[in-house]
Amino acid sequence: MARLGANRYGKAETRVVHVTRGSASGGADAIRDWNVSTSLSGDLASTHLSGDNSNVLTTDTQKNTVYAFANRLGGVEPEVLALALARHFVESQAPITRARVGIAEYPWSRIGQTGYSFARGGEYTRLVTVVHDEASGPSVVAGLADLVVLNTTGSQFWGFPRDEYTTLAEATDRILATQVSARWRYRDVELDWASAFSAARTALLDAFSATRSYSLQQTLYAIGERIIESVPEVCEVRVALPNKHHFLVDLEPFGLSNDKEVYFAADRPYGLIEGTVLADDATDPGPAWD
Amino acid sequence: MARLGANRYGKAETRVVHVTRGSASGGADAIRDWNVSTSLSGDLASTHLSGDNSNVLTTDTQKNTVYAFANRLGGVEPEVLALALARHFVESQAPITRARVGIAEYPWSRIGQTGYSFARGGEYTRLVTVVHDEASGPSVVAGLADLVVLNTTGSQFWGFPRDEYTTLAEATDRILATQVSARWRYRDVELDWASAFSAARTALLDAFSATRSYSLQQTLYAIGERIIESVPEVCEVRVALPNKHHFLVDLEPFGLSNDKEVYFAADRPYGLIEGTVLADDATDPGPAWD
Amino acid sequence: MARLGANRYGKAETRVVHVTRGSASGGADAIRDWNVSTSLSGDLASTHLSGDNSNVLTTDTQKNTVYAFANRLGGVEPEVLALALARHFVESQAPITRARVGIAEYPWSRIGQTGYSFARGGEYTRLVTVVHDEASGPSVVAGLADLVVLNTTGSQFWGFPRDEYTTLAEATDRILATQVSARWRYRDVELDWASAFSAARTALLDAFSATRSYSLQQTLYAIGERIIESVPEVCEVRVALPNKHHFLVDLEPFGLSNDKEVYFAADRPYGLIEGTVLADDATDPGPAWD
Amino acid sequence: MARLGANRYGKAETRVVHVTRGSASGGADAIRDWNVSTSLSGDLASTHLSGDNSNVLTTDTQKNTVYAFANRLGGVEPEVLALALARHFVESQAPITRARVGIAEYPWSRIGQTGYSFARGGEYTRLVTVVHDEASGPSVVAGLADLVVLNTTGSQFWGFPRDEYTTLAEATDRILATQVSARWRYRDVELDWASAFSAARTALLDAFSATRSYSLQQTLYAIGERIIESVPEVCEVRVALPNKHHFLVDLEPFGLSNDKEVYFAADRPYGLIEGTVLADDATDPGPAWD
Repeated sequence: MARLGANRYGKAETRVVHVTRGSASGGADAIRDWNVSTSLSGDLASTHLSGDNSNVLTTDTQKNTVYAFANRLGGVEPEVLALALARHFVESQAPITRARVGIAEYPWSRIGQTGYSFARGGEYTRLVTVVHDEASGPSVVAGLADLVVLNTTGSQFWGFPRDEYTTLAEATDRILATQVSARWRYRDVELDWASAFSAARTALLDAFSATRSYSLQQTLYAIGERIIESVPEVCEVRVALPNKHHFLVDLEPFGLSNDKEVYFAADRPYGLIEGTVLADDATDPGPAWD
Repeated sequence: MARLGANRYGKAETRVVHVTRGSASGGADAIRDWNVSTSLSGDLASTHLSGDNSNVLTTDTQKNTVYAFANRLGGVEPEVLALALARHFVESQAPITRARVGIAEYPWSRIGQTGYSFARGGEYTRLVTVVHDEASGPSVVAGLADLVVLNTTGSQFWGFPRDEYTTLAEATDRILATQVSARWRYRDVELDWASAFSAARTALLDAFSATRSYSLQQTLYAIGERIIESVPEVCEVRVALPNKHHFLVDLEPFGLSNDKEVYFAADRPYGLIEGTVLADDATDPGPAWD
Repeated sequence: MARLGANRYGKAETRVVHVTRGSASGGADAIRDWNVSTSLSGDLASTHLSGDNSNVLTTDTQKNTVYAFANRLGGVEPEVLALALARHFVESQAPITRARVGIAEYPWSRIGQTGYSFARGGEYTRLVTVVHDEASGPSVVAGLADLVVLNTTGSQFWGFPRDEYTTLAEATDRILATQVSARWRYRDVELDWASAFSAARTALLDAFSATRSYSLQQTLYAIGERIIESVPEVCEVRVALPNKHHFLVDLEPFGLSNDKEVYFAADRPYGLIEGTVLADDATDPGPAWD
Repeated sequence: MARLGANRYGKAETRVVHVTRGSASGGADAIRDWNVSTSLSGDLASTHLSGDNSNVLTTDTQKNTVYAFANRLGGVEPEVLALALARHFVESQAPITRARVGIAEYPWSRIGQTGYSFARGGEYTRLVTVVHDEASGPSVVAGLADLVVLNTTGSQFWGFPRDEYTTLAEATDRILATQVSARWRYRDVELDWASAFSAARTALLDAFSATRSYSLQQTLYAIGERIIESVPEVCEVRVALPNKHHFLVDLEPFGLSNDKEVYFAADRPYGLIEGTVLADDATDPGPAWD
């Protein structure tokens, strides 16, 4: 009567910090701060149906493998680690036909004069997802999350339809603020990951800043378009933009004028704009986004 | 060079509390506590490409519509509200071809002697998602999240492959604990929602409790199977089970024996098991899960 | 030029789950789910000033001690564990003159037919804090947090002063909702902890429900007074009540009347009412609340 | 039998964003992003005992006052806003004898070329607390929170006592990481707030980085001492340092050496070090820390 459908399993949120010991040779140390999640799928019906675990590489082993590969590969770009891990699981485990490795990297900046002191930057989290499929091979999606940006002016919102439930006034000058989640898919699996990430992040910030926006959708598209135009290795961008509403406070009851100075930053509800921008010649994503 | 792909927008997390005023007529009040998120898609290229908002029913209007429908419909089951809202957006807005309405409902229980006093139950959150597509019509997915369950015994885990990174010992008696996220798809859009939810939740708890588990995957499948067998209106179940690891503490260094009494409840990393169970005659999901 | 002032150190949030194996003898298992934080103070100047750690019982050892005592004492009330731990640290470590042990206990309820299956109840978290001071001995503060309660009617708020910044309308029938944090100090260190906790919690719920409230302050005082009157072992109650505002939604623009039915549950800002209620013959708290 | 003890009430977490419109005159805009909490105490027995609210300046009014003062004062340092608000409440409301105003300020940095585009920096949150007491006048405590710092080397921990529960190995080279919460009390209520904050933050970072640490307590004291020595306006520093443990992963089972390269970043439990450092001539704090 019942049957098994799509499934996967893995170890989520293995927290790895890697230190490159440059200080040992008179230089400076460097760190990578990662949150690694692995997920495997394949011939796993037996464990679901009867508890036969002979095909189940344990999640504890997956965690150990993350640590071992971090040791072997060293302080590489997170894409390199994710590619190696995903390939390893598929190639070493016959029943496993697809592996997904996601890495969140927390940036740090140097402080003090020591060469070994750091402060965690909280401006954004860097993201990498590699899917390695036995049939279609590996794919790389990179991105960032938790980046909060704001334009104090240069944003409008009007010309929308008005139905019986519409009370919103048109805005010709509003604050536009959002917490960006953006992910972009690369065409290839060998490239200069650090440069590509940096170029995409710069394109994103520039597009947000430079767009004279008539809607957050327009800003979203501009971000995707700018990344695709600035980073030729990228062929698809997916963006989610919560609209962090800033409402002008009515100070008239207190005899005060509020000429776009004092705003209330609201929590909930919030608009949420999600969209995809593709290069005209985007490649087939296969399971890259799964 | 760039083009627009899939997109949607809406108002997330509108927090609505509805009170049915039974107390006015000598009875008791009743409450519904909802977190409603709406999302629309359709002919929205213009706002992305040029900021022309003539097709964009604003997210503020969507919020207002949620309040108005909550008022008109009253303290109904959340499925009823979600169905009505999703249909409304598609039918009233020509450019909109699909609406998604998600509702999280927080349960409350009565306290005191008043008929109007309540305490919020934190055992689980009830979930509903309706997708109304202009072409394929409405679909209903229900479920729950945040339900933490634990078996102190009756769980084993052994017989798994051992590669060079495997150090995990086999377990013949372990604690099994998880925070259940389960969603199930109904075959129909008219049924007794409260009874179906209650039956599915009971089936879930019973399956978790009664399964002599050899893997969390087996427990997941048992949950899905039990729901499908117990609730004929359900044809597909999707479950995510983080393995909330409880590790037996080694007390030997202190001269103490720890005969499965004292455990350390770990935070991260955690196993994460995700899977789908389908009825043999499951209907086509269409965009129900999108 | 600089000197050391008050200080303390310890291990925070040791997550212990204790299982009483009743099932081994044909009965049912029982669990205790604790989050234990220990903190020590005393003659600790050396480690601050020169890094001399000879007086510093390590926080790792404190964690081990928590596990060992949980094993020795078994599934006791959390007050018993906290008292034993706090006494142990002060009595066994000459430099330590005061120990503070805080325990948060997460309640679970039974599910299924097995005798070993549980669901975590999320209605509240039980709290215990023991301070054992070398000079003044032990004290016990118990309480609860995260308890969300709501009255749909029976609450008013009017008669407040109106200055130039006051716009709030008077309310003769409003929703009153709060997330209770309450802690109460016992007169003694030996009593029936489970009964006292249960009686205090019942008193709290009854007072919240039964009070025809003209202000959240009045409700706060009623809660404190009711606990003191209902639980003679309690001589002081401290309560913090965030006002979880529920604002009636204005539906007039849509031609709808909203007769106290549809509310918006706001996040921030929120009123916050904090207060203490004492028995007339309350004992000296000493360092109980530190 | 019961009586009212210490109490206070107010509006927590009013989220204000202030924009200084420099762009209007050809320059750049500037923003202040604040989370303001106000709290009042005084002659408030009546509202607690009988619900007579004639002395209760409503929390809604407090919120309005925050907005109005933000408008009047403009994009000032948060200390200036807090001082003005606290004074206002005490001086304008006869029953109110003490006001506490806390402000958390979220820093932003400029992005793009526009003069009106910003990204929120997540490295730390700036804190201000003003207590204005009718009798003793105002006091100012400033600080920061959420600052995560890490030394990859330069930290040791040994020489601690070993009791029957001690298993920790001595460490001669460990990672030291913490999330700093520091607050410092100023001697005066008129000074260059921005410079003082900046100097204290720099001193904190320098002390963390430069201290060859034998314990986190030693680092804490060094931070406090450095702030007091570097910022003469400060006479007291209170610091809380959770020890964000980084454990070297044992890779020997996999035939790999781990020469201080790969670490597991643990969540819970964590050490927690709290302490106060005072200038020799520190002034009386009065209610500054309440």
